[in-house]
Amino acid sequence: MLNRKLRGGMVGGAAGSFIGPVHRMAAIMDGEAEWTAGSFSSKPSKSKKTGKAIYLDPKRVYSTYREMVKKEAKLPDDERTDFVSIVTPNSSHVKIARAFLEAGFNVILDKPMAMSLKEAKELRKVVGKSKKVFALTHNYTGYPMVKQARWMIRKGMIGPTRKIMVEYPQGWMSRFTPNAARKRWRTDPKVAGSSCCMGDIGTHAENLVRYITGLEIEEVCADLTSHIPRCRLDHDGNVLVRYKGGAKGVLVASQISTGEENGFNIRIYGTKAGLYWNQEDPNYLHMKEPWGTKTIYSKGNPCLCDEAQAAGRLPFGHPDGFIEAFANIYLEAFRAIRAELAGKRIPKCDFPTVEDGVIGNAFIETVVASAHSGRKWTKMKS
Amino acid sequence: MLNRKLRGGMVGGAAGSFIGPVHRMAAIMDGEAEWTAGSFSSKPSKSKKTGKAIYLDPKRVYSTYREMVKKEAKLPDDERTDFVSIVTPNSSHVKIARAFLEAGFNVILDKPMAMSLKEAKELRKVVGKSKKVFALTHNYTGYPMVKQARWMIRKGMIGPTRKIMVEYPQGWMSRFTPNAARKRWRTDPKVAGSSCCMGDIGTHAENLVRYITGLEIEEVCADLTSHIPRCRLDHDGNVLVRYKGGAKGVLVASQISTGEENGFNIRIYGTKAGLYWNQEDPNYLHMKEPWGTKTIYSKGNPCLCDEAQAAGRLPFGHPDGFIEAFANIYLEAFRAIRAELAGKRIPKCDFPTVEDGVIGNAFIETVVASAHSGRKWTKMKS
Amino acid sequence: MLNRKLRGGMVGGAAGSFIGPVHRMAAIMDGEAEWTAGSFSSKPSKSKKTGKAIYLDPKRVYSTYREMVKKEAKLPDDERTDFVSIVTPNSSHVKIARAFLEAGFNVILDKPMAMSLKEAKELRKVVGKSKKVFALTHNYTGYPMVKQARWMIRKGMIGPTRKIMVEYPQGWMSRFTPNAARKRWRTDPKVAGSSCCMGDIGTHAENLVRYITGLEIEEVCADLTSHIPRCRLDHDGNVLVRYKGGAKGVLVASQISTGEENGFNIRIYGTKAGLYWNQEDPNYLHMKEPWGTKTIYSKGNPCLCDEAQAAGRLPFGHPDGFIEAFANIYLEAFRAIRAELAGKRIPKCDFPTVEDGVIGNAFIETVVASAHSGRKWTKMKS
Amino acid sequence: MLNRKLRGGMVGGAAGSFIGPVHRMAAIMDGEAEWTAGSFSSKPSKSKKTGKAIYLDPKRVYSTYREMVKKEAKLPDDERTDFVSIVTPNSSHVKIARAFLEAGFNVILDKPMAMSLKEAKELRKVVGKSKKVFALTHNYTGYPMVKQARWMIRKGMIGPTRKIMVEYPQGWMSRFTPNAARKRWRTDPKVAGSSCCMGDIGTHAENLVRYITGLEIEEVCADLTSHIPRCRLDHDGNVLVRYKGGAKGVLVASQISTGEENGFNIRIYGTKAGLYWNQEDPNYLHMKEPWGTKTIYSKGNPCLCDEAQAAGRLPFGHPDGFIEAFANIYLEAFRAIRAELAGKRIPKCDFPTVEDGVIGNAFIETVVASAHSGRKWTKMKS
Repeated sequence: MLNRKLRGGMVGGAAGSFIGPVHRMAAIMDGEAEWTAGSFSSKPSKSKKTGKAIYLDPKRVYSTYREMVKKEAKLPDDERTDFVSIVTPNSSHVKIARAFLEAGFNVILDKPMAMSLKEAKELRKVVGKSKKVFALTHNYTGYPMVKQARWMIRKGMIGPTRKIMVEYPQGWMSRFTPNAARKRWRTDPKVAGSSCCMGDIGTHAENLVRYITGLEIEEVCADLTSHIPRCRLDHDGNVLVRYKGGAKGVLVASQISTGEENGFNIRIYGTKAGLYWNQEDPNYLHMKEPWGTKTIYSKGNPCLCDEAQAAGRLPFGHPDGFIEAFANIYLEAFRAIRAELAGKRIPKCDFPTVEDGVIGNAFIETVVASAHSGRKWTKMKS
Repeated sequence: MLNRKLRGGMVGGAAGSFIGPVHRMAAIMDGEAEWTAGSFSSKPSKSKKTGKAIYLDPKRVYSTYREMVKKEAKLPDDERTDFVSIVTPNSSHVKIARAFLEAGFNVILDKPMAMSLKEAKELRKVVGKSKKVFALTHNYTGYPMVKQARWMIRKGMIGPTRKIMVEYPQGWMSRFTPNAARKRWRTDPKVAGSSCCMGDIGTHAENLVRYITGLEIEEVCADLTSHIPRCRLDHDGNVLVRYKGGAKGVLVASQISTGEENGFNIRIYGTKAGLYWNQEDPNYLHMKEPWGTKTIYSKGNPCLCDEAQAAGRLPFGHPDGFIEAFANIYLEAFRAIRAELAGKRIPKCDFPTVEDGVIGNAFIETVVASAHSGRKWTKMKS
Repeated sequence: MLNRKLRGGMVGGAAGSFIGPVHRMAAIMDGEAEWTAGSFSSKPSKSKKTGKAIYLDPKRVYSTYREMVKKEAKLPDDERTDFVSIVTPNSSHVKIARAFLEAGFNVILDKPMAMSLKEAKELRKVVGKSKKVFALTHNYTGYPMVKQARWMIRKGMIGPTRKIMVEYPQGWMSRFTPNAARKRWRTDPKVAGSSCCMGDIGTHAENLVRYITGLEIEEVCADLTSHIPRCRLDHDGNVLVRYKGGAKGVLVASQISTGEENGFNIRIYGTKAGLYWNQEDPNYLHMKEPWGTKTIYSKGNPCLCDEAQAAGRLPFGHPDGFIEAFANIYLEAFRAIRAELAGKRIPKCDFPTVEDGVIGNAFIETVVASAHSGRKWTKMKS
Repeated sequence: MLNRKLRGGMVGGAAGSFIGPVHRMAAIMDGEAEWTAGSFSSKPSKSKKTGKAIYLDPKRVYSTYREMVKKEAKLPDDERTDFVSIVTPNSSHVKIARAFLEAGFNVILDKPMAMSLKEAKELRKVVGKSKKVFALTHNYTGYPMVKQARWMIRKGMIGPTRKIMVEYPQGWMSRFTPNAARKRWRTDPKVAGSSCCMGDIGTHAENLVRYITGLEIEEVCADLTSHIPRCRLDHDGNVLVRYKGGAKGVLVASQISTGEENGFNIRIYGTKAGLYWNQEDPNYLHMKEPWGTKTIYSKGNPCLCDEAQAAGRLPFGHPDGFIEAFANIYLEAFRAIRAELAGKRIPKCDFPTVEDGVIGNAFIETVVASAHSGRKWTKMKS
């Protein structure tokens, strides 16, 4: 295949943002890609500044994503960007992704995918028509020990799943309440969509459960709360969940769990054993056996499944972090993109797809509908 | 006051049971009481054997609790048992407690208090009339760091409570499923009451929340599940809770969380900080501050509140365990009993009362009602 | 055998002391003994006060241990104390123990046993002649998971031992430096002996290594430090150790490791696996396997060896603490004492003996000799 | 300054090695540099293969480091590599570094720096003469919380340091004993130098202590052991240390602590508090206060010092890992290199220097000398 680094473009993610730099590091750290173009901000001066800071050719730094689509599309094959990463606020995800897909670019998009289930389904159609690679960065599935957990469950090591406790507790909204306006793109329904907390992090929880266990939600009962004056969106949610096939559980996402940082964690109980994983201590997977032992599996060891071993970059005891997990999503997307560029059949790769995005938006709409209907049990939309 | 050890009697708790020996150790370890009488089993031979094993005078070992009430009541003041601890299956709690209270004995009763809210309220009346001391062994409130948590919240150290996550995960039902029949007193509605898991350990969770935060439940939405063939009672429950005053949260109790032992834990989030306590690591209380630190308070230190210091028996770093926490309930009950025996006004002591028992039974009935009504939100009964 | 509680007497341990109350709780919590006599302080009024607080018959509260020996010895068989627990400062251990042993009493003595190796050997002779039961309270060997560790090593589960890291870090001397005078019995050579830190807690470390692994020290190189002005004794020590048979390691004891509470812990590395135990989290034993897993064994489970199961009082997940471990030493001593009182052959019991005490004093003298000789490697005395 | 990515060359580190890929990822992840040249193996075919795998221009992949020096030196300014990273076995470090420095290249070298103290001092002269940037990758000093620890000690937050426990336990030699021959470059004195374990990881321990506390070793007493048949070098070492100024402690490095992975950790006790950091959980720094609290500081928070904040790439709760810490060494070296290339005065940067390398080799020679002299206390060489 292609014996060169891939060329990437970025929309959004100006210097100073959180997720822009994460994508930038994740994409290049393995030496498989380099950044060559971008439209980093709706303010052209900010975009230029970011382009310069990462040593881009000024001609490839654009004032708008529309300009970028148009001009990049006209570049010759050996210059044009091979993929575009979109890290803008939620409200522009779909229109930008559509523009690039329709112009023939592979797309990597941050989550949540769309503003609504309807919009998500439209994007699904666009992706389908485009024949391009489309990846959604539910990055937590990139951790080696998450892959190990999935493998263990598939192998039947914990027996049929009975109970799933998944929590994504953060506390930053308690910290920043007075300045919440600064986070307008998270708290304004026109920019963020119908949910703040469930959209931003609840979707990660739904995705992680499904990635590890394969289980889909059947119905939910959601109690969502807004904690910021004049903000109509949720900053905290407690949700009872029933999964197809009979497992039950709780899904919690919170931005006002004061003192929590990013303690996304999951506990899964089968008839034979329980599993526990926490992204703040991501290189360890805990198995709880029924007769008095707990076994902690650690990253980088020969006892792990192939996928978990392949997803680690370092030997045991040398911690892989958040960026490495994120980079694993990129590496898998790159495998697909290299095939696409070579005109080959795109192989089955291990990254979240447009289908995951559709389910994520269905999840958001379902929990919001439950909460707004007097917290009634509500069937998962589809 | 009384310059002698108190004399205790026990109903139930034959050798081989779990909670009988716990009460026996807890009551005597501080040298404040000794066991002098008992009716340990419905099988007289088993009762005798237990009495002998703990070196009781055979004349004070009775075949039935009725015999015990009758004969002990006739003993002279300087021989008669000062209090009776009742550790029988739930179904006989009230009738035995009533018999002893009405015969003038102080009573210490294991939880849950009664088979129904109605029965609980009847016992409340009996206790009121009797003027005797009545304590219910919600033992987890005896831990020093639970008292510290309560004090911190009262002092406003975490700000107003917004969110409460309380979980009582056990996995023993997964272990013992084939032999569950052996645990008939837990799984048979006629003996256990209307709930297995929520009655046995969910009530501890309700009690702990109320003890620490002072918050009462307003309404719940409960999803309860039975996991044992032919057993109609719950072995697992996920409950959404709204507390009076606006706090919300989740209450989980489970006997099928495979691999969990007795991991009763609580997280409380206020506007200013979060608290975490876990009974499997009971000598530490974790405070999570919003600016990047967590502070772990440990038992036996001068920085703690008076109640927490008094409730510890050992210097810092020397672990107090389950029995010591249990013994703290007894010590407080003994303070009341010594006053009662001396004819003095019973001082305000720090042990769970008949009122806690009534609320516990109300809690059971409320969650069961919610679960049976198609998992609807249900107002707390009272 | 004897169908009654044993009768215990105590020397030292007035109200307000640390270890006196620990012995008192440990001896009675299982219902196997009761306290009937004592000489709790060199100040008669303090002794009386303590006796009253624990409801002793005033006639059995003595002003001096000599009076106690004399008067108790004259009491009839069915009144006389069956054993005496000695919890005085180190300097009086041997003389008091000798007096009781020679008068025919069984003795339980706190550690370190004697002021010198010479004195320790004399006591060994006295014990041998007396035919009485003599137990030394190296209480940490009473923990269930310590017994599990010993069993695992005996079974060859970690292979031959190569390396032993044992540490007993405390920080209280940093706290209390200004008032260190209050702790005269620990810091005055005439009362404490030739070592403060190594005598008080270093001996526990030596004992624990030997109990778990069976290994005896061959030679040491010790760097001891005094941190309190005008105190000649050590408050901190770092010791390189070579064990007979080839294992090597480090033994550290410290009273100035600021912020440490009582973090006594041991790591043992064999050719096949490693073990870790920490007394501040005593119900868990960690096994570190070479291929990427760690297994945590927890107390109260069927997977443990018989000794570990027997040494726990509660089911899994219900923490046993320091007092319960201490009480296990007493329970084993009581087994021996009941045999002795019944005139039977004393069975092999699991408590530290006078031989352990002799080795403990040899250890103290060896490390002090090394330190004083310019920190030279020094053969273990015997 | 230079508005472009730096161009890097590498010597050693063929595909399949551990540390080569680490350097490659660390250098490029921040977008500050790209790899442009290399001589990756003494086998030209292997070197070519590696060059191809990272998409290098085949003309810039060299068969020997000598060819690389010669040809790269002749390239024009806008093509020539700006720095060279040397990751070969220890025995060739100095000669290769010397060749590049003398040809005018900036050098980044893996540790330990040299085969002997003598050789290290020679390299120091070469570096001094060259006026080039020279960095040694003692990578653990790149972790944010290590910088926080250093800052806290400088600010006097733990008071004067009294005791330092530093341990670097690994167990891989227990795993791989049968294949140890494969690791010839670690176990053959001609390739590894006079020490295996102390050279490889003991030097990290020495460096970390000095980085955090500023304390230099005065004298040591070392007990080193070889555990592999026919290998004369150490695989385990226990060392007593006295630091200049009066602090004392223990330094342990081990490759046979079975089940340990890479558990490099340090505990530092001052008069006012203690600190603890462990590289397997690197985003947390534990402070142990004397009055009953422990405070855990976590990465990415506003409460940290500027250096710790700057060294983190992600918000709180998003784990930075080993590669990010390694990349921090590169980022600081790049700051210096950019100044050097611009002909400016090289600013004070935060990376390990040739001086650290000299001290590291002095440390190795000192502990080996102590061990070989009958484990005598030995003054630190210089």
